[in-house]
Amino acid sequence: MSRSLYAVIMAGGSGTRFWPASRTARPKQFLPIVGGSGGGGSPMIRQTWERLDGLVPPERILVVTAADQAGLVRDCLPDLPEENLLAEPMARNTAPCVALAAFEVRRRDPDSIQVVLPADHLIRPAEAFRRSVRAAAAEAGASGALLTFGIRPTHPATGYGYIQSGEVLAEHDGERVLRVKRFVEKPERRLAEEFLASGDFLWNAGIFVWSTRAILDAVAEHAPDLYAGLERVEAGAELARTYAGFEKQPVDVAILERAASVRTIAIDYAWSDVGSWAALAELTEAGAQDNRAVLPGGARLVAEDATGCLVFAEGEQVVALVGVRDLVVVQAGNATLVCPRDRAQDVRRIVERLREEGPEFL
Amino acid sequence: MSRSLYAVIMAGGSGTRFWPASRTARPKQFLPIVGGSGGGGSPMIRQTWERLDGLVPPERILVVTAADQAGLVRDCLPDLPEENLLAEPMARNTAPCVALAAFEVRRRDPDSIQVVLPADHLIRPAEAFRRSVRAAAAEAGASGALLTFGIRPTHPATGYGYIQSGEVLAEHDGERVLRVKRFVEKPERRLAEEFLASGDFLWNAGIFVWSTRAILDAVAEHAPDLYAGLERVEAGAELARTYAGFEKQPVDVAILERAASVRTIAIDYAWSDVGSWAALAELTEAGAQDNRAVLPGGARLVAEDATGCLVFAEGEQVVALVGVRDLVVVQAGNATLVCPRDRAQDVRRIVERLREEGPEFL
Repeated sequence: MSRSLYAVIMAGGSGTRFWPASRTARPKQFLPIVGGSGGGGSPMIRQTWERLDGLVPPERILVVTAADQAGLVRDCLPDLPEENLLAEPMARNTAPCVALAAFEVRRRDPDSIQVVLPADHLIRPAEAFRRSVRAAAAEAGASGALLTFGIRPTHPATGYGYIQSGEVLAEHDGERVLRVKRFVEKPERRLAEEFLASGDFLWNAGIFVWSTRAILDAVAEHAPDLYAGLERVEAGAELARTYAGFEKQPVDVAILERAASVRTIAIDYAWSDVGSWAALAELTEAGAQDNRAVLPGGARLVAEDATGCLVFAEGEQVVALVGVRDLVVVQAGNATLVCPRDRAQDVRRIVERLREEGPEFL
Repeated sequence: MSRSLYAVIMAGGSGTRFWPASRTARPKQFLPIVGGSGGGGSPMIRQTWERLDGLVPPERILVVTAADQAGLVRDCLPDLPEENLLAEPMARNTAPCVALAAFEVRRRDPDSIQVVLPADHLIRPAEAFRRSVRAAAAEAGASGALLTFGIRPTHPATGYGYIQSGEVLAEHDGERVLRVKRFVEKPERRLAEEFLASGDFLWNAGIFVWSTRAILDAVAEHAPDLYAGLERVEAGAELARTYAGFEKQPVDVAILERAASVRTIAIDYAWSDVGSWAALAELTEAGAQDNRAVLPGGARLVAEDATGCLVFAEGEQVVALVGVRDLVVVQAGNATLVCPRDRAQDVRRIVERLREEGPEFL
């Protein structure tokens, strides 16, 4: 009776915001930066996989990743069937990724429902997330709407897009589905504060639920070049060449903002896209002297009169802090980073410079 | 006619003030931390050796070091004759070191003069230093006095012992030899300011010139146990057992402060014992944004809006600083240190903790 639920894990990110822990060859989704006790834990993509446990069986979980990260995915997800690993020839943002996965899922089961989610978000508790997905899947099956998860804002963030929600359109097992009135791009601070105060704005988190049929209809309508390209691939055209011709576009902009029937399910449990070292600090339990340490592989922190710092170090090494406060200190491989927590977003400036001056450190 | 000049390089230090660049197995004198262009250069002991070039031939340069550092000495000083490497069985501060070397030099040439100098001081220009040594050697030969180099203070340092100088007793080639009125232990700040203002106080730098006969007479008189012990060793007793019984004492305290005829030769060219990361910062040429980098082995510094920092890193790695100021950042081997420049002396607190918590990092 109920339609099969597939999951599509988007693991194509090449994020630079966790440099030097994240590298070109090992982006954030493969890092054990968060979720364990006292910081650290399994790689984020592994946590994403485990979040689906009991909701979607391994044979219906697809992972879309960059071709050169396929090995990392296999290492993290040994139970992923080989045919469920979809390699993108190049990064083209999420619209092509979503469409590629939808074509593959349609080939297997055209009547299916999908949950599409990034590999590198933190969501807790997993059971609450699964309840939301079940409700969204029921709604997607019943109404044919495209559903996006809306995160109840906790602060006036200027780094996310917002969704203005409207009235309750349906309810499934106590989870309410809301109308989406409009999408708003990353707002200025003042506007973000108004959004927060209004109570009906949600962060657009990039987690989606829809029927395979509905998303492909929407791709065909709003991104016809993308749809046509993937049809050619299905007919035998070379994926790499076709993919190269796709525009880099997020699925929100290319599809959702233009689609007629978009709904949202609001979640108010813990969510983070762990977008910077500063965000990681907030997600990591404070230790002695209010320092936070993420130390995979047995690394050590020794602090003397140092407070409010976030330290990441890998392997058998020590990071010693004396008399400093509110710094991010990262030692990973051949690189060390020191910056104030409130400047963590400027790590990208280092990465930009290293593209020119020292690609061997990226 | 003129008596042979020997040099004794004291290379027994196991300093912890440059942790984590200096380690138990590689103290500061073996580090290339200073003296090169733009920071770095040859190991300090090598610079000390080269400073003697043209003044003392290799066959008359002795190096006293810890037994387990003999290999490092040979690596840095390939021209040092093997029989000129004296290994101390254990660290006993400078009085036993000086006496051990003096016994060995007497065995070779009882009528010789010696210059005794630490392996890890920065002195520039070398030619001025050699001129001072020649004058001091002439004075030591003529008067039989023990000479200590007195550094003209540049600031009211509280970390050095002082010498109060008196009238000019002699002059050699334009270099004036002064009476030593008294030695003063490390003073309080106010007293140090008075010393600086008075103009007749000098830092006691631990660089000495004396005749082999005069220093051994002084050892016999003021440290009779030390003298007797080394006589027993000369007669065949085991050095290690004898050395273990020696008191840990600096030569200044054990001998010079008690000796009748001590004179000083004042030097006013560049000298530093490079006693901390902060001191190294002052000795290192500022680069872009007023940051100073000592990067042996091709390491790199990338700074964005960071200023006044000292960075030390070895090998093929990068240190990235964003938005920080006046920090010391060191990455060496399995350890990373971050501390404000004005807290550099507290690195010893880290070292003390690691003795208990992580000796593998020392």
